[in-house]
Amino acid sequence: MQGDTRAAAYTAAGVDIAAGEQAVTLMQAAVRATFGPAVLTDVGHFSGLYNLAGPLGQVDGPTNPVLVASADGVGTKLRLALVAGRHDTIGADLVNHCVNDILACGARPLFFLDYFASSKLDPAQVATVVGGVAGACRAVGCALLGGETAEMPGFYAAGDYDLAGFIVGIVTRGRMILGSAIAPGDVVLGLPAVGLHTNGYSLARRALRLDDPDAAVIRTRLAATPPGLGATLGAVLLLPHQCYLPLVAPLLDAPDGPLVRGMAHITGGGLPGNIARILPPGTAVALDPRAWIAPPIFALIAERGAIAAAEMPHVFNMGLGFILIAAPAQVAAIQALVPAAGIVGRVTARGADQPAVTLDDP
Amino acid sequence: MQGDTRAAAYTAAGVDIAAGEQAVTLMQAAVRATFGPAVLTDVGHFSGLYNLAGPLGQVDGPTNPVLVASADGVGTKLRLALVAGRHDTIGADLVNHCVNDILACGARPLFFLDYFASSKLDPAQVATVVGGVAGACRAVGCALLGGETAEMPGFYAAGDYDLAGFIVGIVTRGRMILGSAIAPGDVVLGLPAVGLHTNGYSLARRALRLDDPDAAVIRTRLAATPPGLGATLGAVLLLPHQCYLPLVAPLLDAPDGPLVRGMAHITGGGLPGNIARILPPGTAVALDPRAWIAPPIFALIAERGAIAAAEMPHVFNMGLGFILIAAPAQVAAIQALVPAAGIVGRVTARGADQPAVTLDDP
Repeated sequence: MQGDTRAAAYTAAGVDIAAGEQAVTLMQAAVRATFGPAVLTDVGHFSGLYNLAGPLGQVDGPTNPVLVASADGVGTKLRLALVAGRHDTIGADLVNHCVNDILACGARPLFFLDYFASSKLDPAQVATVVGGVAGACRAVGCALLGGETAEMPGFYAAGDYDLAGFIVGIVTRGRMILGSAIAPGDVVLGLPAVGLHTNGYSLARRALRLDDPDAAVIRTRLAATPPGLGATLGAVLLLPHQCYLPLVAPLLDAPDGPLVRGMAHITGGGLPGNIARILPPGTAVALDPRAWIAPPIFALIAERGAIAAAEMPHVFNMGLGFILIAAPAQVAAIQALVPAAGIVGRVTARGADQPAVTLDDP
Repeated sequence: MQGDTRAAAYTAAGVDIAAGEQAVTLMQAAVRATFGPAVLTDVGHFSGLYNLAGPLGQVDGPTNPVLVASADGVGTKLRLALVAGRHDTIGADLVNHCVNDILACGARPLFFLDYFASSKLDPAQVATVVGGVAGACRAVGCALLGGETAEMPGFYAAGDYDLAGFIVGIVTRGRMILGSAIAPGDVVLGLPAVGLHTNGYSLARRALRLDDPDAAVIRTRLAATPPGLGATLGAVLLLPHQCYLPLVAPLLDAPDGPLVRGMAHITGGGLPGNIARILPPGTAVALDPRAWIAPPIFALIAERGAIAAAEMPHVFNMGLGFILIAAPAQVAAIQALVPAAGIVGRVTARGADQPAVTLDDP
């Protein structure tokens, strides 16, 4: 997004300044639409300036605000989007992934920055991708404060690009949720995921034979509708990563403090890997796999890839994209505010040599 | 940096979990060494938490802090680093570039996040690159708060990677420096750059025939010492991007307010493009090219690439990496605090059809 006017000689060396400027022109309306009154700079400055006075007035305990930041990419889901020529949803994948990552600590987004890199800038493609980033930012009241569009001749195959994002949010120290209060007897609730989100795509692509060297073969396979899936494989696999902020926000705003003791965003590492990240020493989680129904895409991946059932939850979210852990006394209040939250397990004391998370009958 | 424990089946699909974990292990001491008391989380959380209470107590006017953020990559300087097998300096390139970008608004760094992507993780390589990022962060008191190490099979050539960085800094609203007070008669001072920093490498590589398809040929050329350069071409071209924070900080801290009215970091767009970004309407800058001596690498690039002298400053910094603009009455105080700052031009009224920045005799 940051403006760039280099000399014309640059073009001969593979850096197309005009394309860069055209990309900025195409994307700037979408980017500006994300700006609230806190954004003090327009597109094209050395950096983006964000006035914290507003957010500091909103969080309680303004003397101890905590900034929460996370960086992420979209992983190899991007390969499917590239093959399918779908550049309008990958931005939501990126933003929603990042929003969920900071949400897991109880934070709300303030602003986002993106990094887009390709060997040769295609202004329309960049604008579509960044338009998706901007739209997802706007949906959660997050400013797209800046970014970098890099032209890296020789680094990416023709038509390819990579996309990374960076988010900053805020939480007051007294409402941070880091899992330290989780105790045996607590209840584990799950929020449904519509699909894979942005995780496990390298394995899914292999299992579903979507890693063929011939893009036309992949496109044919993406256009098929396997029995029980209810949509084409491509439509299901490219469903954007869901954003849990609107669902979870009411739980954070309860007057006597957050209604949950811990939250986990189910990304790389699947259910066990991510739930384990927030459990304090001496606690374990037993998930009951019969407590929810995984979307059919997961059975299809397991079957076509001959992947052991026990391995699947270590890679995929299995239909639970976000986990809440709460004291039993809070469960009714949580389910009243978030009817989609279903009980999927229980916190127990962790015995010696016991894994942090098991998927057994509770 | 965020922890990841996927199932073993993933390895067969090209995602090596063990390599990712080994990379985290190798880099975590360097990352932790950047943590001050403001960092509330260790390596491996969903996000990094940064306590703002400290910085808010330090900036004056704590009721109106402004966050300043920027995203950047290292551009095709990375290609030379890859060919030369130098992975320890590219982190400083990235961090210092970002620090200078937010410094141009008067901000100091709080924290940094990095994005590293390759087709196949080489733990030692990642750790070296991120170690460089961490070292440069530590040098300016900036926490390396998080990051993402992405394995993207099929996106990058073997041994290649891309690296992007995101920085967040802070400035109190009353000390933001956006250039709006710049007026005709103001003085333009330049801070020396030791080389190209991270800019113009696509053109430099072409001019110096460092874009040969054969890496061995490039390495031979990098090992040569052209007359007048005083070092090998490789050593000069891989000099890290300079950080101007230590030099410029005293100018920002003056008790009656910053001593400068505008600052420009000379990156893509060279001297005219970047100085133009901070000039208010009706003002222009006339630079006197005889006022400083460009390092010999620039003459070498111009000569070998047959690039017109007039085009060079539109691509390269020409030896001025950072520009200060100040009222004449402040120049003596500035030069007392920053002896390296030399007068290189003057602000004038901008006539109709006159370019914002000229490189003529003043």
